[in-house]
Amino acid sequence: MSRLVAHLSRRYHFSASHRLHVDTLSPEQNREIFGKCNNPFGHGHNYVVEVTLSGPVDTATGMVANLGDLDSFAQREVLDLFDHTNLNTLDSFLDCVTTTENLCVEMWRIFSGFAEAGAYPQVKLERIHIEETGKNSFDYFGEGAPFRR
Amino acid sequence: MSRLVAHLSRRYHFSASHRLHVDTLSPEQNREIFGKCNNPFGHGHNYVVEVTLSGPVDTATGMVANLGDLDSFAQREVLDLFDHTNLNTLDSFLDCVTTTENLCVEMWRIFSGFAEAGAYPQVKLERIHIEETGKNSFDYFGEGAPFRR
Amino acid sequence: MSRLVAHLSRRYHFSASHRLHVDTLSPEQNREIFGKCNNPFGHGHNYVVEVTLSGPVDTATGMVANLGDLDSFAQREVLDLFDHTNLNTLDSFLDCVTTTENLCVEMWRIFSGFAEAGAYPQVKLERIHIEETGKNSFDYFGEGAPFRR
Amino acid sequence: MSRLVAHLSRRYHFSASHRLHVDTLSPEQNREIFGKCNNPFGHGHNYVVEVTLSGPVDTATGMVANLGDLDSFAQREVLDLFDHTNLNTLDSFLDCVTTTENLCVEMWRIFSGFAEAGAYPQVKLERIHIEETGKNSFDYFGEGAPFRR
Amino acid sequence: MSRLVAHLSRRYHFSASHRLHVDTLSPEQNREIFGKCNNPFGHGHNYVVEVTLSGPVDTATGMVANLGDLDSFAQREVLDLFDHTNLNTLDSFLDCVTTTENLCVEMWRIFSGFAEAGAYPQVKLERIHIEETGKNSFDYFGEGAPFRR
Amino acid sequence: MSRLVAHLSRRYHFSASHRLHVDTLSPEQNREIFGKCNNPFGHGHNYVVEVTLSGPVDTATGMVANLGDLDSFAQREVLDLFDHTNLNTLDSFLDCVTTTENLCVEMWRIFSGFAEAGAYPQVKLERIHIEETGKNSFDYFGEGAPFRR
Repeated sequence: MSRLVAHLSRRYHFSASHRLHVDTLSPEQNREIFGKCNNPFGHGHNYVVEVTLSGPVDTATGMVANLGDLDSFAQREVLDLFDHTNLNTLDSFLDCVTTTENLCVEMWRIFSGFAEAGAYPQVKLERIHIEETGKNSFDYFGEGAPFRR
Repeated sequence: MSRLVAHLSRRYHFSASHRLHVDTLSPEQNREIFGKCNNPFGHGHNYVVEVTLSGPVDTATGMVANLGDLDSFAQREVLDLFDHTNLNTLDSFLDCVTTTENLCVEMWRIFSGFAEAGAYPQVKLERIHIEETGKNSFDYFGEGAPFRR
Repeated sequence: MSRLVAHLSRRYHFSASHRLHVDTLSPEQNREIFGKCNNPFGHGHNYVVEVTLSGPVDTATGMVANLGDLDSFAQREVLDLFDHTNLNTLDSFLDCVTTTENLCVEMWRIFSGFAEAGAYPQVKLERIHIEETGKNSFDYFGEGAPFRR
Repeated sequence: MSRLVAHLSRRYHFSASHRLHVDTLSPEQNREIFGKCNNPFGHGHNYVVEVTLSGPVDTATGMVANLGDLDSFAQREVLDLFDHTNLNTLDSFLDCVTTTENLCVEMWRIFSGFAEAGAYPQVKLERIHIEETGKNSFDYFGEGAPFRR
Repeated sequence: MSRLVAHLSRRYHFSASHRLHVDTLSPEQNREIFGKCNNPFGHGHNYVVEVTLSGPVDTATGMVANLGDLDSFAQREVLDLFDHTNLNTLDSFLDCVTTTENLCVEMWRIFSGFAEAGAYPQVKLERIHIEETGKNSFDYFGEGAPFRR
Repeated sequence: MSRLVAHLSRRYHFSASHRLHVDTLSPEQNREIFGKCNNPFGHGHNYVVEVTLSGPVDTATGMVANLGDLDSFAQREVLDLFDHTNLNTLDSFLDCVTTTENLCVEMWRIFSGFAEAGAYPQVKLERIHIEETGKNSFDYFGEGAPFRR
């Protein structure tokens, strides 16, 4: 292992619908807080999830981690579950609103399992970045997360 | 009016959900034809609609049409109706599937009213281009449309 | 020369300011027609000009035209004159408003000289496409132009 | 309030002209330092301003801050003042050159008022990112700023 | 079948290396014609191939063609052969230079087989568009092609 | 010098080919580790290198560093050597694999010479960011580097 530490970022795309709604609030409160995002029939987005990992650059292979391993993990743990779905129907959002902030935290929870799942003990999850539209994006760096990275 | 004819294109964005489903087909047929796009709870996209108009370049103003007029029209006739909605619940899709092909034709129908709505008798609707995701897009040039352009 | 005909498109970028204003109209008329684009101190854009040429694919070289030749021409005839300038001060706009429609026609006039300037007798200018912002673009195909292509 | 802290970023676009010029320097010095950006009639850009805020994810709403509130603030405090103007004529640049570095600092000053203006006592301004063209961008993280974030 | 005819476009990405070189020319001639693209060890690009098909919008399904069918075809006939290769080593370029013009013609030849391969007798290949870099792209519309579309 | 510190980022593009291969490993091991990137004839990419510098905003000029100086440096030290080449043939990669992780470190080594080469004693190299494709990118912040920034 070299002492050089690099970051690698990989982008994944999925299309999903959602509705921002809190059951314990009144319809008026929901409309006031979430505006058009509270539309009862939902709306949708092409989400872009970019995951960033850091780790030592392997002296022999010149790599932090094999992108093929990361792609397999993302396909199985993220894309198969989230692509072409309604986020409100997923187990991940049983107890919380389907905002992109919460989606970031859920992606952090999922990708925090990559280091163990692959054999990358030295790789750390650094950032989850989600683009909801071309105008707004969200980042989560694990602050306050109840899971290790 | 000059003899010079130019084209202008303007892009509008909206986020919507939809489900591809034909009521007169069986669940199995729907799933076979539409795959994951038939997911009962829907999914969604950030749609980009680009409308292209052509017309003589006005000798005095140097313009084909005023973009402010086009924006007002698009806000009232398209964005107010389509943004943050579920396409399947709109009147436009009572009788047809919410594919982007059909969405193109519906946009053509709407924007074909711009020339009259504004005072642009010499402006012609040339093209509706819709990007459903970064990977696929659709164009409609009015072929077979039952409305004038 | 082969019978195969292909199109090549090349993008050039320049940054310029401009003001939409017609001297023979009153200040009120100018403001009504051009809105905020009539602001007396101007505003500006990063313009993207894409020029499209067509021609037979040379059997030996596999090319329609040498991009190096096109780049030299564009540098000398376009970028050196238009980049980091105020369009309203250029000779090209002595007699017409600095709309992107008129800029397209001017680019067509300039690039229509490429075939002769290079030694590309069989190359035709097909299209000038200019993106003024990420939301609006203009195309000119030579309709009504007083110059050959 | 949850212990989870997320970042949200929102992009705003405006088109403006400017000229890099220091009155106390000679014309030759100005030309040497600023090159073609010193062109006396100015030039312009489509500026993209991305503002990043951080804060706790509200347990009930799942949000760091309401994007509608941020958009209203940006419209009133930024876009209404900067869009379709000449930066050199603005009060913000009475005493300093209209470089994008200085524009970043000015945007920091403005957006540092958002937390108070909205009722977001826990939201912090993290970053101002400005893209001047597709090739160069600038970031300001508040280092040395005489205003609180 | 409806009388409505729409176009659908789908983008595919592959990374490949190549060298522009004509064996029957001298090294000097090759260098003069192809410049740095003649570098003996090659160079490479992330190619984007966009294929455009037209056809009647099916009244029942609302589709011109099933994107899943097109993706399978493209994976098998294009990506498996071209991605992560050196274009100069492929059979397609035994007799011609690996310019993007020739790559367009080869893609046209391949995708002209889609209508038959799928069961889309009414679908026509309209255009092959290839982006070699963000600055230059090429289009081929079948002019002079020795194969049907 | 002001106390304000800003970051500036500049993007450079080059096209190159490469092959991931370690001579001391067997062909089978190489294929297992590098997959299709081990293809003996190589493949290629349009690389985007974004370099980020930080420094005090000069009170007089409003700039961290002159972009013209940075461009000259990048042209001479990076683009002239890397554009339209095969990375495997460069001195930089005599002893290491041509992964983008290693390319980042090499770019860090080169750009760490900018502060001295220009006369920017207060400018610091902050980050090298390289986009290999639209899907994956790499960052290096100098961690473990045997050169000063």
